[in-house]
Amino acid sequence: MKTSRLEAFSDGVLAIIITIMVLELSAPEEATVGALLERAPVFISYVFSFIYLGIYWNNHHHLFQITQRVNGKVLWANLHLLFWLSLIPFTTAWIGENYDQTLPVVAYGVVLLLCAIAYFILQTVIIKSHDTEFPLRKVVGSDRKGKISIVCYFLGIGFTFVNTWIAIVLYSVVAIMWLVPDRRIEKSL
Amino acid sequence: MKTSRLEAFSDGVLAIIITIMVLELSAPEEATVGALLERAPVFISYVFSFIYLGIYWNNHHHLFQITQRVNGKVLWANLHLLFWLSLIPFTTAWIGENYDQTLPVVAYGVVLLLCAIAYFILQTVIIKSHDTEFPLRKVVGSDRKGKISIVCYFLGIGFTFVNTWIAIVLYSVVAIMWLVPDRRIEKSL
Amino acid sequence: MKTSRLEAFSDGVLAIIITIMVLELSAPEEATVGALLERAPVFISYVFSFIYLGIYWNNHHHLFQITQRVNGKVLWANLHLLFWLSLIPFTTAWIGENYDQTLPVVAYGVVLLLCAIAYFILQTVIIKSHDTEFPLRKVVGSDRKGKISIVCYFLGIGFTFVNTWIAIVLYSVVAIMWLVPDRRIEKSL
Amino acid sequence: MKTSRLEAFSDGVLAIIITIMVLELSAPEEATVGALLERAPVFISYVFSFIYLGIYWNNHHHLFQITQRVNGKVLWANLHLLFWLSLIPFTTAWIGENYDQTLPVVAYGVVLLLCAIAYFILQTVIIKSHDTEFPLRKVVGSDRKGKISIVCYFLGIGFTFVNTWIAIVLYSVVAIMWLVPDRRIEKSL
Repeated sequence: MKTSRLEAFSDGVLAIIITIMVLELSAPEEATVGALLERAPVFISYVFSFIYLGIYWNNHHHLFQITQRVNGKVLWANLHLLFWLSLIPFTTAWIGENYDQTLPVVAYGVVLLLCAIAYFILQTVIIKSHDTEFPLRKVVGSDRKGKISIVCYFLGIGFTFVNTWIAIVLYSVVAIMWLVPDRRIEKSL
Repeated sequence: MKTSRLEAFSDGVLAIIITIMVLELSAPEEATVGALLERAPVFISYVFSFIYLGIYWNNHHHLFQITQRVNGKVLWANLHLLFWLSLIPFTTAWIGENYDQTLPVVAYGVVLLLCAIAYFILQTVIIKSHDTEFPLRKVVGSDRKGKISIVCYFLGIGFTFVNTWIAIVLYSVVAIMWLVPDRRIEKSL
Repeated sequence: MKTSRLEAFSDGVLAIIITIMVLELSAPEEATVGALLERAPVFISYVFSFIYLGIYWNNHHHLFQITQRVNGKVLWANLHLLFWLSLIPFTTAWIGENYDQTLPVVAYGVVLLLCAIAYFILQTVIIKSHDTEFPLRKVVGSDRKGKISIVCYFLGIGFTFVNTWIAIVLYSVVAIMWLVPDRRIEKSL
Repeated sequence: MKTSRLEAFSDGVLAIIITIMVLELSAPEEATVGALLERAPVFISYVFSFIYLGIYWNNHHHLFQITQRVNGKVLWANLHLLFWLSLIPFTTAWIGENYDQTLPVVAYGVVLLLCAIAYFILQTVIIKSHDTEFPLRKVVGSDRKGKISIVCYFLGIGFTFVNTWIAIVLYSVVAIMWLVPDRRIEKSL
């Protein structure tokens, strides 16, 4: 099967996930600076999740640029990734209202961790479904970035119980690391 | 007519249906484990419906990979399927809040049954609009899976009045049966 | 310019319009038949609007199958149509709660009328942007169906002040008339 | 990389942004003219934002018709534009309820200004990623319209503190200026 429809469906789901988060950002009742500032934590968590989802869309885009065909396993590995990404609006809304509480920060980290694992599975399933000459195999290589991310999420989840800000810093480090575009795939295109 | 735009529109509708269900999963007011656990039934019903919609997207994808052209009847048979699928977020929200009550479980089963019938009609209309050499004809064959599903939904709806869990088990059996990818179509591509 | 991106954007908007209406169909608080029946008028107005939007998607699909290229005027005539279609969820929600009151039925009819006029404008702009050999010119011809629809909407809006059911019957007649697929375009493809 | 998937994702996000604004336009509780008229400011701000987003979609469409390839920087410049556009439903809802108050009108102007700057950055990044023969370079030229818009937004934000209507007139002038299609790109296609 060709990849076009899988890409179209994933684009649709990602576009909706990234946009419905803005529904949480309801307009303040009053037209005052104070009422606007009350929305600041919700706004910042929206910016953060927007960047994260942007990174996933970018990586997904790169991944399927190089993928030649999909089978049933790839379809399900992709749906599995979309499932965990679809929980980001939920954890974003929760952390936006409770950014200084342990549980919402843990929940945010767990969902990020599960997204990273699902992406890793998707990548592995795609590589397995192609032959040994498949360029992604060389490009991804040891996938250092993917592994560092997963370690950071685990550390973040653990450190939340000490101080939620350590977790938030760790998740930001992962985001910044990924914002540097994956030149390995780009070059091989 | 070509199938591309029908696929794009269906992908859009399915992407929205699968994603708006997450809006029901509103963030808990309090940042406690208890408040999070209260969301568990809503979460489980979301997972369940996500898998069901994933199965429909997968089968729809396979079906139109093999379909060569569409006419007005196919467009309407497809819209008919999308209509019943669009009710899944409604029954999912209802069952999530009332998973142990007869009526929401019956409603959930009835919508699944009508989706299955609509899919069967769509498949039949597509086969009729192609000539006798059309590969889908041989591939689908007696469509055993489709028929077993419809029987399970009928049984499930009936047994809900005895015990809602029998119905939930039956609907899960159908989902598991479909998770095994349809190798017949995949091979013939 | 090619038509592909205009079609993709319109598919996206129509898919969202047709699906967000289901958000109005909130799950009943209680798991009783009475609570479900209270949703009946909202459900029926959803079915009705789903069919109407399905007709518009079908006709739009046929129209752009035959259109060879678009210019700035066509882009705006299309956005103008999408604008009026985007108000259907609003009038659907209002009529669903107040199907026996004059104003919501008038509002529903006015939006349908403006959609029909916008579709007529779009068709005219497309024909003008192509040369005299353009097949749509012959196919559309006198556009009898379009004209009858506009007359029915005017009559419906007027008769609402006598009895809302006359209007609802008239709008249903238009829907049934359009459900018969437009064989003129289909044949010429 | 090809531009097709970037266009599909942007179409998805823009389609959702333009459509979810209609969710703010909730159906009136009562079926009276008074209740409908109360929605008028929300409706007018919806029309206004719909036109603005339509302009952005049109310009985006023209821009990528002429763009031959994208790289990682273009993907992020595009996501940056989509981020600011995604805030339009928020400011639209706020201005709709408080069109005569300074702060919501300032917020509306600031988001429009940031969208214009993001569009300018996207355009610049695309031009830089192509060689000196790239047609967009000649077509965009001094980008007078883009510069006038940014000046109008700055003036509008400033004059809001004198009278909100001056700002609203200035933003309308920008919209009307852009409604005239960009013939420079259209001719060169």
